[in-house]
Amino acid sequence: MPETVEIGLGREARRGYHLDEVALVPTRRTRGSTVVSTAWQIDAHTFELPLVAAPSDAVVSPSTAVEIERLGGLAVLNGEGLWTRYEDPTDAFAEIGDPDGCSTAQLQQIYSRPVSDELIAQRISELRASGIRVAVRLSPQHTVALSPAVLKAGADILVIQGTIISAEHVASEHAADAALNLKTFIADLDIPVVVGGCTNYQTALHLMRTGAAGVIVGYGAHSGSTTHAALGIEVPMATAIADAAAARRAYLDETGGRYVHLIAYGDMSTGGDIAKALVCGADAVMLGEPLAAAAEAPGAGHYWDATASHPRLPRSALIDLGSEVEDRSSLEEVLIGPTSDASGERNLFGSVARVMAKCGYSSVKEFQKAELIVTSLR
Amino acid sequence: MPETVEIGLGREARRGYHLDEVALVPTRRTRGSTVVSTAWQIDAHTFELPLVAAPSDAVVSPSTAVEIERLGGLAVLNGEGLWTRYEDPTDAFAEIGDPDGCSTAQLQQIYSRPVSDELIAQRISELRASGIRVAVRLSPQHTVALSPAVLKAGADILVIQGTIISAEHVASEHAADAALNLKTFIADLDIPVVVGGCTNYQTALHLMRTGAAGVIVGYGAHSGSTTHAALGIEVPMATAIADAAAARRAYLDETGGRYVHLIAYGDMSTGGDIAKALVCGADAVMLGEPLAAAAEAPGAGHYWDATASHPRLPRSALIDLGSEVEDRSSLEEVLIGPTSDASGERNLFGSVARVMAKCGYSSVKEFQKAELIVTSLR
Amino acid sequence: MPETVEIGLGREARRGYHLDEVALVPTRRTRGSTVVSTAWQIDAHTFELPLVAAPSDAVVSPSTAVEIERLGGLAVLNGEGLWTRYEDPTDAFAEIGDPDGCSTAQLQQIYSRPVSDELIAQRISELRASGIRVAVRLSPQHTVALSPAVLKAGADILVIQGTIISAEHVASEHAADAALNLKTFIADLDIPVVVGGCTNYQTALHLMRTGAAGVIVGYGAHSGSTTHAALGIEVPMATAIADAAAARRAYLDETGGRYVHLIAYGDMSTGGDIAKALVCGADAVMLGEPLAAAAEAPGAGHYWDATASHPRLPRSALIDLGSEVEDRSSLEEVLIGPTSDASGERNLFGSVARVMAKCGYSSVKEFQKAELIVTSLR
Amino acid sequence: MPETVEIGLGREARRGYHLDEVALVPTRRTRGSTVVSTAWQIDAHTFELPLVAAPSDAVVSPSTAVEIERLGGLAVLNGEGLWTRYEDPTDAFAEIGDPDGCSTAQLQQIYSRPVSDELIAQRISELRASGIRVAVRLSPQHTVALSPAVLKAGADILVIQGTIISAEHVASEHAADAALNLKTFIADLDIPVVVGGCTNYQTALHLMRTGAAGVIVGYGAHSGSTTHAALGIEVPMATAIADAAAARRAYLDETGGRYVHLIAYGDMSTGGDIAKALVCGADAVMLGEPLAAAAEAPGAGHYWDATASHPRLPRSALIDLGSEVEDRSSLEEVLIGPTSDASGERNLFGSVARVMAKCGYSSVKEFQKAELIVTSLR
Repeated sequence: MPETVEIGLGREARRGYHLDEVALVPTRRTRGSTVVSTAWQIDAHTFELPLVAAPSDAVVSPSTAVEIERLGGLAVLNGEGLWTRYEDPTDAFAEIGDPDGCSTAQLQQIYSRPVSDELIAQRISELRASGIRVAVRLSPQHTVALSPAVLKAGADILVIQGTIISAEHVASEHAADAALNLKTFIADLDIPVVVGGCTNYQTALHLMRTGAAGVIVGYGAHSGSTTHAALGIEVPMATAIADAAAARRAYLDETGGRYVHLIAYGDMSTGGDIAKALVCGADAVMLGEPLAAAAEAPGAGHYWDATASHPRLPRSALIDLGSEVEDRSSLEEVLIGPTSDASGERNLFGSVARVMAKCGYSSVKEFQKAELIVTSLR
Repeated sequence: MPETVEIGLGREARRGYHLDEVALVPTRRTRGSTVVSTAWQIDAHTFELPLVAAPSDAVVSPSTAVEIERLGGLAVLNGEGLWTRYEDPTDAFAEIGDPDGCSTAQLQQIYSRPVSDELIAQRISELRASGIRVAVRLSPQHTVALSPAVLKAGADILVIQGTIISAEHVASEHAADAALNLKTFIADLDIPVVVGGCTNYQTALHLMRTGAAGVIVGYGAHSGSTTHAALGIEVPMATAIADAAAARRAYLDETGGRYVHLIAYGDMSTGGDIAKALVCGADAVMLGEPLAAAAEAPGAGHYWDATASHPRLPRSALIDLGSEVEDRSSLEEVLIGPTSDASGERNLFGSVARVMAKCGYSSVKEFQKAELIVTSLR
Repeated sequence: MPETVEIGLGREARRGYHLDEVALVPTRRTRGSTVVSTAWQIDAHTFELPLVAAPSDAVVSPSTAVEIERLGGLAVLNGEGLWTRYEDPTDAFAEIGDPDGCSTAQLQQIYSRPVSDELIAQRISELRASGIRVAVRLSPQHTVALSPAVLKAGADILVIQGTIISAEHVASEHAADAALNLKTFIADLDIPVVVGGCTNYQTALHLMRTGAAGVIVGYGAHSGSTTHAALGIEVPMATAIADAAAARRAYLDETGGRYVHLIAYGDMSTGGDIAKALVCGADAVMLGEPLAAAAEAPGAGHYWDATASHPRLPRSALIDLGSEVEDRSSLEEVLIGPTSDASGERNLFGSVARVMAKCGYSSVKEFQKAELIVTSLR
Repeated sequence: MPETVEIGLGREARRGYHLDEVALVPTRRTRGSTVVSTAWQIDAHTFELPLVAAPSDAVVSPSTAVEIERLGGLAVLNGEGLWTRYEDPTDAFAEIGDPDGCSTAQLQQIYSRPVSDELIAQRISELRASGIRVAVRLSPQHTVALSPAVLKAGADILVIQGTIISAEHVASEHAADAALNLKTFIADLDIPVVVGGCTNYQTALHLMRTGAAGVIVGYGAHSGSTTHAALGIEVPMATAIADAAAARRAYLDETGGRYVHLIAYGDMSTGGDIAKALVCGADAVMLGEPLAAAAEAPGAGHYWDATASHPRLPRSALIDLGSEVEDRSSLEEVLIGPTSDASGERNLFGSVARVMAKCGYSSVKEFQKAELIVTSLR
């Protein structure tokens, strides 16, 4: 049974744990790090790194998608981002990256331009032409309208992602807000679908039952997130991932063996954070802000995600990562090293391989059995 | 049973939780936010927003009361504030809002001017003339003396509010401190009475038994409060609200159905905080400081409440909210948006509606069933 | 049973609580603050305030002792401080209060001058001449040598106080370190003795069995204390006081009614802190740093205690309280108000009376029954 | 049973405690500090202080090793540090200590020079010539290759130390990474071996079973460590030491009396920290950063350890201790005082003796029985 406390008379609440409240415990066995594999496979696609680059315009562009694939990860292009709103998004990027700052109001204005089906098709074609596996993200609200273009253009993986989504949406009467029935929608598709984010056992289980190949846990909380302030929702990721892993076990049992991949998203900035997310039960991690600081990142030293440009209630700030161009590391250094940076924010997956070795595990799946210790309380 | 710890041998204490220690957990269902209602009804009065504007001179003036009603909330004028001490409070507001600062000693001096029955009557008449519902606050100490003027002038709602009040006051021998028997006092009135603040189950229950239509939980702790330092009293609001909700259930049962409204007051500055207060069991929230930053607020970028001007033991600082006039948002943006501010402190009730939708609830009363998770410890 | 946690396999530890982790819970009854008494009586001596001024040279001088008595408290002169080391300590005070700073090395040098029996006698005579009750503090190490002078000069109360003392000291072979047997020593005296500090139930109980009239709980932790860093000893005062109160109950029972007074010392800077110490079980509080900021305090805006000048291992810093002379409040304002300072650090005992009233209690002894709530964790 | 919490459904974790979360509880008995002994014996070697100076080039050089022995401690020379990579390391030290800073990249480059067997032999000879007991540290990876030189040169104690080591290493196929079987390796040696670091009961027990005379608990976490960030591993030292002490008891029982010494390493900077490590069960402490600030320390006001120069994934920063040369204390003042520094970071072992006395214990072994209290939560 989960740990509960009584907040007030007759009012119970669970205690949730964040990744920074826990740490890994080595075992009595160690390994050489060269005998360790961090590889991850979803559906027919194998990746050397358990990495999904977040569908943020600050991270994934047609060109960084190619580099991320080369380094071993999967990049997700935002199907409702600048690349599908602007024929040429150069000016939009320049305005956002303006060293004198870009306000949330400007960001709202830049993202108020409508998404174009034609641009969706064009971007997917460009990516396919470069030979990589193409993953595109749509919001649940616009999946019905925009997915035909995505599918027709030949995406390999569809990511349906909102801050918090559910398998059962009670729609309003607005025509534009046509209800998406995830289960029937996914059943009709030939490509794997990843859905999320979710925050708890019940939602994770219901999302698995839609037929999704992967479920995203968390909403990508980053250093500029104000979702907790604005909505009162906060996801203690260690708990959320472990709960979703319990749902994965339950779903494995009820289906006699269908394994749905968990992709953790949020509150991770270092190799240690990633390692802990995997140990809590994630099969892979989705990273946004940690990659936005790389030299090749399109955000020019800034990070923002879809919540930053919400027209009525923005829920994150546009972050100035503060690093000079000349100080930025390459995506290669950030992801697989080597590095001369001692912050834990570079060589992220070299770190993961090293700690797997120090804890005596040789694969991510085995690593999920590692022991955790609570070392501090937030 | 409430969670208790043993502080020392034979000395137990409960563990109380603050709103910022908890977060909301989405369910497996979501809704469109347009099918959500935040409406609140107390006695015969219905409001679109579950909002009571605090009886602080920094927030509620005759003119902002009208605007707050227009936007859907209820404004409470302080019956013992500047508007009832000064025929024309312009100079007093100017001194308090002086950009060079106003000391607590000055504040004490400004508020040392006696309250006038005639001004109470005049302010109420003005408010009635503008067509809004009129709520006036009196302190428990002066309710016996000042309530006749309030009632005669035709207030719609009477708020009897001190930092901490009880249903059973053991008076001193001072003539000026005539004991107020809340139960007999309220029984004689024709208008609904709201009383508070209280901090725990027993007091909440006893206040309900006075016949009050609403009970205020908390004393309006804000960023300048020193009540904890000065008096050792601190109210963990999540616990206090949940306890008062338990008292509401007990009172519902003992009366066979009389529902007393709970109004949470203190430690809330964002939409998320308000949402959590409602989920803990509040029917509405009383807001002071969050509204004081609005462009129309009479405090000119400052916030203070009655504890700041106490003649012998002031228990809060006069707060300079630090925002330039040109940066202030309208009350409309603060309350119902839209906004381009990502802090969570604007579009407060748009936030509440959105999170109700994301958690799958369509009314405040339903929303009180939402699940909570403890995400950090203060 | 006390709350314990398992730190490691086979290693348990109690959880201790600090005063700032708890808060007072009002009851369903309130009182007018004018019907509240804070008076305290130890042996034949009654004081209007439950206050003992700490034997720090920064607080108690012959002149402030008189003022503290006038305001209702008891002042303890340090029998091993500047007044008994120097015929005229003016230069020593000037060096310590030097606006350009005084190093710990200087402090060690200033206090290296030997204590004089004659000066002890002279200071006590002066105090007696002013008509106040005279309390003098000696360290356990020097009580055997110096107490004859104290007793002969006619002190009313003897305070034997070290950082941590015990009723059973295993002495070294040093001649100068003659073992003090508290029990036989106290039995021979005609005046009440206060001993401390102690930190736990067992030590408190054994100190009570020495025949002491009062026991000090805590070692006076203040903002400059490094005892935790240097020695690893830290006293969570809420727990320590509650434990000592349990010892007081046990001792009351085993003696058939002898009541030993508990004086809490450390980690208090506001009226709320004092109130919480009383509720935890203290009969009075010993205050040092909070009084050192007063205009009349001899430290000229500085605070230090005996641990600051230890010749080999100083365990606290000389604190510059940082207030300009013109900003300092009188001892009267600090102790009984009124005040225009909203920090909670002025009108300390007015605060105590007020919160006793708000919680519905009329005497300190009754107030010890008040309810506590844990509101944050350090 | 250890204290566990449920992080998520079906996912438990222990709660670990850091040294700064606990404090010592005095008993009802005190002692004079001159009747206290802090002496420590490992194998045939006795030391007045329970101190092992860490094998950091910033702390132990041929000359400071002599001074540390003179003051009562044991110094460990890093067999893979500057003294065995450079015939004359003067320039390397100068580059690292450059007041204008030395980057991690420079540090990596400086340490990329190979270790020389001849220099190992030469340094050991020099140390032997000075008449002190010689201890040398090797990493587990290079012990097979480098230990013959160490042993032949006549070291008295061999320290095999990596961040996290185990008794059972699963090697990679790399020729250079020849597997070290600790058990057979140690069995063949005539001198005592100390191994570590370890973090938990199982690893500690298995390391004891290798025949080691001492086991190091912890990896030397210091103010610049980023091991938690980079690897997700963090060692709550109070728990780790207490667990290893439980392993020591188990091993004592299974061997019928073989006592393996525990040496705590990390998260200690003051006398209080050291005292708490001993009370948790350590027989001695290994100190790096606290000694690096001494006037004689070779790091010229800087601290770094082997993790700082890792070629692919550095896991700590080069720390500028920030003290001017003229402000540095001698090793003697740091270790045994006296001092005029009130920070708790000087007279470290005078502090330990003093607190042993205040808690009534006369030897380190007895002191391990002292009571602990949890006084704050990280």
